[in-house]
Amino acid sequence: MRINHLLSLAAFVVILQTSSATAVANDPLPSWNDTAAKQSIVAFVERVTEEGSSDFVPVEERIATFDNDGTLWSEQPYYFQLAFALDRVKAMAPDHPEWKTKQPFKGVLEGDLDAVMAGGKKSLIEIVAATHAGMTADEFEQIVTDWISTAKHPKTGRLYKEMIYQPMLELLTYLRANGFKTFIVSGGGIDFMRPWTEATYGIPPEQVVGSSIKTRYEVRDGKPVIVRLPEVDFVDDKEGKPVGIHSHIGRRPILAAGNSDGDWQMLQYTTIGHSPSFALIVHHTDGEREWAYDRQSHIGQLDKALDDADQKGWTVVDMKQDWKTIYPSE
Amino acid sequence: MRINHLLSLAAFVVILQTSSATAVANDPLPSWNDTAAKQSIVAFVERVTEEGSSDFVPVEERIATFDNDGTLWSEQPYYFQLAFALDRVKAMAPDHPEWKTKQPFKGVLEGDLDAVMAGGKKSLIEIVAATHAGMTADEFEQIVTDWISTAKHPKTGRLYKEMIYQPMLELLTYLRANGFKTFIVSGGGIDFMRPWTEATYGIPPEQVVGSSIKTRYEVRDGKPVIVRLPEVDFVDDKEGKPVGIHSHIGRRPILAAGNSDGDWQMLQYTTIGHSPSFALIVHHTDGEREWAYDRQSHIGQLDKALDDADQKGWTVVDMKQDWKTIYPSE
Repeated sequence: MRINHLLSLAAFVVILQTSSATAVANDPLPSWNDTAAKQSIVAFVERVTEEGSSDFVPVEERIATFDNDGTLWSEQPYYFQLAFALDRVKAMAPDHPEWKTKQPFKGVLEGDLDAVMAGGKKSLIEIVAATHAGMTADEFEQIVTDWISTAKHPKTGRLYKEMIYQPMLELLTYLRANGFKTFIVSGGGIDFMRPWTEATYGIPPEQVVGSSIKTRYEVRDGKPVIVRLPEVDFVDDKEGKPVGIHSHIGRRPILAAGNSDGDWQMLQYTTIGHSPSFALIVHHTDGEREWAYDRQSHIGQLDKALDDADQKGWTVVDMKQDWKTIYPSE
Repeated sequence: MRINHLLSLAAFVVILQTSSATAVANDPLPSWNDTAAKQSIVAFVERVTEEGSSDFVPVEERIATFDNDGTLWSEQPYYFQLAFALDRVKAMAPDHPEWKTKQPFKGVLEGDLDAVMAGGKKSLIEIVAATHAGMTADEFEQIVTDWISTAKHPKTGRLYKEMIYQPMLELLTYLRANGFKTFIVSGGGIDFMRPWTEATYGIPPEQVVGSSIKTRYEVRDGKPVIVRLPEVDFVDDKEGKPVGIHSHIGRRPILAAGNSDGDWQMLQYTTIGHSPSFALIVHHTDGEREWAYDRQSHIGQLDKALDDADQKGWTVVDMKQDWKTIYPSE
């Protein structure tokens, strides 16, 4: 009798687990329309997680890498980190009266972005050096945390950190539920992202790879600090992405997602000659709900990688067709 | 009745779990003698994991960093990675007839280590460049894997990878069981360690920080590869350790372990001005079972950090007194 009761209980537990697993399996990606993109994602995840399958991948090798700008959050009309830098110039201006007459800072303060951009890469590096270096790592983390908690996008009025893609959040969660370790591999600043990626995407600082400036260890007033220096250390973009992956992760991803030619090499590195593997491109096709741009765009140009997608069997997400929603509901 | 049966079962399950938890709690570190070192480790772990305690640390912030040479495995009579490099010179010599007459390679081939060392840092860099660069990352991984699977230490006759410290393996396991994420932060080569740290220490490649040479992304014969270049990129030693931690992990550890002045800055960075925190120094005091060395040693010199340990309240492990066993049983 007792055995019978135990068996009933066991059966009940099994039924509970099965039905809950079925519910998740039925729709792990509720904000995705049931189109080819979603189907190919689910088919890949099922293939690599099914024990005994010839494509089975052990949990420790389930590495997934995601670009950030344009892949996990929006990037128009210009990278949100540039918005941060411009806001910082304005906030710091009272301590820098000389900026009133000196480009590119003058342009920033007068809202004349054309004047800023006229200085090209040199101007941008000057702005980054002025706003991202010269303080300790802890101080910079606080500055970023304050900004990301309050700064809003001029077009949508949303906090920048709320302009993340709901379908991609679901994809991250779905992958982690299937034993994947999810990483960001972005051209953006590693220390600009780390203060908020854990709360926003569930990706901890140690799983964020990005561009960096040099730093130095120092004991300042008896306290050990990391000091941020005005010198570029590593650019995690294009050819830099596989290098950054090798340096920080030390294994090849089996899944990579991007949205621009800056991700092209990462998608190649993940897929060519390595199977099973999966590459995903977020194609910005929705001018109504987000922005529509690709081959001609200055920000997030998608050209060569889009040509390659067909030949290589990469999955291209058509935002307008494939996504039910863009941003999380407010 | 049914409810009663369920309650019995539940009680049984609870008893099973409790007794197993008690067994672990009773002796999480069986190869450690019950001395002050072990007691301070256990007290710290209990303090930071006890919910409601003022020193409670959330799981995601439980970062522990470990030096490798002399902290997780032996390092005498010289770093095992140097033994690897010397073995590689011998293996590669048939393709380099010019090495027979050219230092430092001549010295290596003739077993005249004094001649090699006479060339100082320049000679070592030449040897590293010849043996660690010029191939793809995948090729180098295979070379390291082959070597670590077969190469034996001349004194002990053990595989190098079996000259790891059993008490430290237990400490790594104990920390992970308590929610810590364990990292290696070593002056050794990051790509020399990554191929075997997961199987040996339970530390995956993405949690290994070390010194590196530059690499480049390339598509070679249609295949994307990472090519290893003969140029130093980053030295993860002394002041470099906090920099490497900041770059790779992006948060400050709450526990760090080392054995030499090369770890001094990492121990400072972890503990000074940050509480709760814990620093551990492995002091090589056992000339019988391992090696005895500290202030005067060329390899693993421990001098300033040992002076600091007293003032800072760092825990110094006396290998001879505190460890029941050194290496895992064969």
